[in-house]
Amino acid sequence: MAPPPTYLTGDKAAINEFIGKFDTFLFDCDGVLWSGDHVFEGVPETIRMLKARGKRTVFVTNNSTKSRQDYLVKLSHLGIPCEEDDVFGSSYSAAVYISRILKLPPGRNKVFALGEAGIEAELAAEGIACVGGTDDRFRRDMTADDFRGLADGSLLDPEVGAVLCGLDFHVNYLKLCTGLHYLKRGALFLATNTDSTLPMHQSFFMGAGSCVAPLECASGRKPLELGKPSQAMMDAVEGKFQLDRARTCMVGDRLNTDIKFGIEGKLGGTLHVLTGVHKKQDWDRDDAVAVPAYYADKLSDLGLVA
Amino acid sequence: MAPPPTYLTGDKAAINEFIGKFDTFLFDCDGVLWSGDHVFEGVPETIRMLKARGKRTVFVTNNSTKSRQDYLVKLSHLGIPCEEDDVFGSSYSAAVYISRILKLPPGRNKVFALGEAGIEAELAAEGIACVGGTDDRFRRDMTADDFRGLADGSLLDPEVGAVLCGLDFHVNYLKLCTGLHYLKRGALFLATNTDSTLPMHQSFFMGAGSCVAPLECASGRKPLELGKPSQAMMDAVEGKFQLDRARTCMVGDRLNTDIKFGIEGKLGGTLHVLTGVHKKQDWDRDDAVAVPAYYADKLSDLGLVA
Repeated sequence: MAPPPTYLTGDKAAINEFIGKFDTFLFDCDGVLWSGDHVFEGVPETIRMLKARGKRTVFVTNNSTKSRQDYLVKLSHLGIPCEEDDVFGSSYSAAVYISRILKLPPGRNKVFALGEAGIEAELAAEGIACVGGTDDRFRRDMTADDFRGLADGSLLDPEVGAVLCGLDFHVNYLKLCTGLHYLKRGALFLATNTDSTLPMHQSFFMGAGSCVAPLECASGRKPLELGKPSQAMMDAVEGKFQLDRARTCMVGDRLNTDIKFGIEGKLGGTLHVLTGVHKKQDWDRDDAVAVPAYYADKLSDLGLVA
Repeated sequence: MAPPPTYLTGDKAAINEFIGKFDTFLFDCDGVLWSGDHVFEGVPETIRMLKARGKRTVFVTNNSTKSRQDYLVKLSHLGIPCEEDDVFGSSYSAAVYISRILKLPPGRNKVFALGEAGIEAELAAEGIACVGGTDDRFRRDMTADDFRGLADGSLLDPEVGAVLCGLDFHVNYLKLCTGLHYLKRGALFLATNTDSTLPMHQSFFMGAGSCVAPLECASGRKPLELGKPSQAMMDAVEGKFQLDRARTCMVGDRLNTDIKFGIEGKLGGTLHVLTGVHKKQDWDRDDAVAVPAYYADKLSDLGLVA
């Protein structure tokens, strides 16, 4: 069993030592910086303090609905200092994986997307053709013709070689059945991430994992996950930022994504904050999915040293 | 391991002996009698032959989208002799279970339904109030107000004591999030059935299990299943028809629902037909979920004796 994490809240010496150990901080966003559109008090100041101390701050999010550009707008609007290159989202990670690792062959290089505009924007930025997504033609009820056309393949694009699923606020029966038929024809099965829930307004809504679940159930297949805790994402982050893993700390609110991501990526440290999904009792058990090295009540507790 | 099943196709003596063993035949519908709206050749004649020989024929279906009345119309339209009492659907089974077994207390006795008109009709027939279902107010995109109203509970009906899920051709993010919030507030979690796929047009579409999967994923809970192979359904069938299990045979095309249902229900026999989901290789393996006692290429092969 992992040793219990060091508690930083209110302990100025421990916080200083903690910050001194790292050059780069990877931040999860939802549940760490904000909840929905509500930024947590003191977060912008904490990020500014870290940057003033010469730290690199990177925002690593599993939220697939937004592109890097969307995130930049949101971070800036909330007063958090950031540039587009500081954002690493699961849609971007998926697009990079598809274009640079998978390299789908010509004639089978389109992607059927179950998700929002963030996926489309990042696929487009990597030059990958996409069907589905936010296309209005898929935002409707299934018809008798659709049943027939999917069954006989006439409604399917023969060039689709992969199904990429993320959080889709417009998930419906037609899109799910279309994705299922591409999978049955041998398309690769990818997910931007598989977080089961989306935290908002001190509650939880359906996450990307819950949007992918019907396709897993019906196809009997599991998707390759490209968001946290997948190390495909860590490799991409490392490649882009040329970071020293030993001097990098992952900050998050979920043990099964953020903290696991940092531990399996052999980062120098992990910091859990209690403003999101998981609480102390979640790692304080024998079968804990991951145990952070540090924890604090909230991110702005690091500001005690400023 | 169970002994291999007896093959009936083309074997007149074996068919006669098989039919003679039973007074009641429970038929699955999709994949046995028809596929979608296409009735298999010779099926009406086979049912008529069994009835002429004094057999009771009961149609036991996991399709939750149709009420018993709907099924009666479909069976009659396809030329299959039937009365409303001969139909036993998973929506009816669920409604009976809720009204007669669960007996939800006053003030907590409404049901939030994720599904089609069949669920609503059967709940209404048992006098159970229902929200959700085919209500147009749930057939739309989720708004910012919905996120807030679900999180703070203002959009939830405090009298909902159970969430009942079936196949929903109009599944969407709003309905799923609404169901999730009822579950989070302690509602019972029920499913008419959990078939992962819906066979149609020689292909497979999303089944009820795939509509329930998002709620299982997001809530971390498993529903109580009320369709095949749940023995809650067998008990209800037995109670209604006063059948002698030893002289009853279940006929189906799925090992994990129909055949398992018959075996676990300790029926006198099970007949698998190869016109639906599972094939010979599915029981011809060490880890087969269930092995039928008999099998035939198609139901009308029984007509050889007529």
